[in-house]
Amino acid sequence: MRPSIVLFGDSITEESFGEGGWGAHLANHYSRSADVVLRGYSGYNTRWASLVAGRAIATLPRSAVAAVTVLFGANDASLPDRASSFQHVPLPEYKDNLRAICAVLRTRWPSAAVILITPPPVDERGRVRYPYGGDVSGLPERTNEVTGRYARACVEVAKQSGLRIIDIWSRMQKFPGWETSFLRDDGLHLTPLGNRLLFEEVVFALRDANLSLEVLPADLPLCSDIDPNDAVKYFQE
Amino acid sequence: MRPSIVLFGDSITEESFGEGGWGAHLANHYSRSADVVLRGYSGYNTRWASLVAGRAIATLPRSAVAAVTVLFGANDASLPDRASSFQHVPLPEYKDNLRAICAVLRTRWPSAAVILITPPPVDERGRVRYPYGGDVSGLPERTNEVTGRYARACVEVAKQSGLRIIDIWSRMQKFPGWETSFLRDDGLHLTPLGNRLLFEEVVFALRDANLSLEVLPADLPLCSDIDPNDAVKYFQE
Repeated sequence: MRPSIVLFGDSITEESFGEGGWGAHLANHYSRSADVVLRGYSGYNTRWASLVAGRAIATLPRSAVAAVTVLFGANDASLPDRASSFQHVPLPEYKDNLRAICAVLRTRWPSAAVILITPPPVDERGRVRYPYGGDVSGLPERTNEVTGRYARACVEVAKQSGLRIIDIWSRMQKFPGWETSFLRDDGLHLTPLGNRLLFEEVVFALRDANLSLEVLPADLPLCSDIDPNDAVKYFQE
Repeated sequence: MRPSIVLFGDSITEESFGEGGWGAHLANHYSRSADVVLRGYSGYNTRWASLVAGRAIATLPRSAVAAVTVLFGANDASLPDRASSFQHVPLPEYKDNLRAICAVLRTRWPSAAVILITPPPVDERGRVRYPYGGDVSGLPERTNEVTGRYARACVEVAKQSGLRIIDIWSRMQKFPGWETSFLRDDGLHLTPLGNRLLFEEVVFALRDANLSLEVLPADLPLCSDIDPNDAVKYFQE
C-alpha cells in the first residue's frame, strides 16, 4: 500500500517540481515508498484556496493519503494599498481561511498528517526590481515585516489546531545572507538552496509524523535485497 | 478531471525525479493539468517487471490514467556471461515480457496511451570505470551493440502492437559526444542533458497522443485569467 503525500499551496508549491524544487526532491526521496501529488496554484491566496480546496483534491483517493502540506500566505500578505491589492486578505480572515482549508483536508483524510508551512520571508529589494504587473510606483507590493505577521498567524493556527508547523519564515532568516541564498532575484520565490532547506524541513516534519523512509516499506523488492541465484522467487506473489 | 501520466520502468525511471530528471520536468510541465506518477524499480528487467506490473499499479485509480511510459531493457541486455548475468533476459523473452506488461496496462486502462521507450545507449568505458558489484574482470557487463538489439526489439514490439515508441537509443546517438553529454560517468544513467532530451521526446509523444498542454485544461482558474476587480467569482462553484 503506497501512500500519497499531497502538496497544496500557491506558486511556491506549483513551482516545486522545477529545477532543484522541494517537491521534486520529495518525490525522489520517496521514489520507492510514496507518491508525491502536486496541487499548487500560483497567485492564490487563502480566500480563493478555501473556495476550491474540495475541488482541488476531488480526484485524489479517499484512502492512502498520509500527509498534506499547506503553504499559503505570501499572496494574502500583499499590501492592501499597493500594486497587488487584489490578492490581499486581512489577517483575521487569513486565519479563518487556513482553518477552513484544514477542515476540508481533515474531513477527507481523517488520519492524514496536515503540515502547515508559513510563507517564506520576502526581500523587498527584489520586489522593487520585479514590480508586480509592471507597477511603476517604486514601492514593494509586499514587505517582510507584514509577511512575518502572516507567518506568526499561521504558526498560531497550527498550534491551536494541533497541527504540525514549519516556520520557514523564521528558519530562513537565521542564515546570514538569506535574502540572496534562499530567494531568487524577485525576492519572493525560492532558489535551489531555499528549496533544499524547505525540503529538509518537510522531511523532518514527515519523520515526526512517522512517515520516514525507515518506516515506510519499499513498494516492491529492492534489487539489492534479492539473491542473484534465485531472483524470480522475490517477485512472485 | 485531472488525468495521470504513469512512468513505469527501471532505474532510469526511478531516478527521474533526481536533479534535472525527466520525470520532474514532466511534473513541472503539467503542474496545472496532470499528475505524474512514479513507478520506477532500479535493477529490474522485464521478467521481474512483468511479474509485478499488476501490483505496481494496483493503488492507482482505474480511471483518469491518460498515459503510461514503459522503459525497460537496459538490465535485460546485461550479458549472460558477465558480472551482471542475473539481470540478463534473452531477447525473445524480452519481447514477450514487454507485450505482457503492455497487456496488463491496457487491460487496466483501456483508453490510456502506452508509450514504449527503448533503453538508452551504453558507453562501455563508463561500465569499465564503474564495474558492476566490484567486478574485477575489466570487461563491461553490458555493451552498446547488444543494448541496441534490445532497443530494436522494443521498436518492433511497439510497431506490432500499435503503440507509440521513443527510440532514445538511436536518438541520442545522433548527437556527437552523446557518450558524455547524455550519459553519466557510469556510462549507463542519464545526465541532466540526457534527461532533458528524454523529457522532450516524451512531451512530443504525449502531444501526439492528444495530451499536450494546449489540449489539457488547467485544473482551476489561472491567476492571470481572473479579473482583479471581481476575483472571487472565478473560484465559486
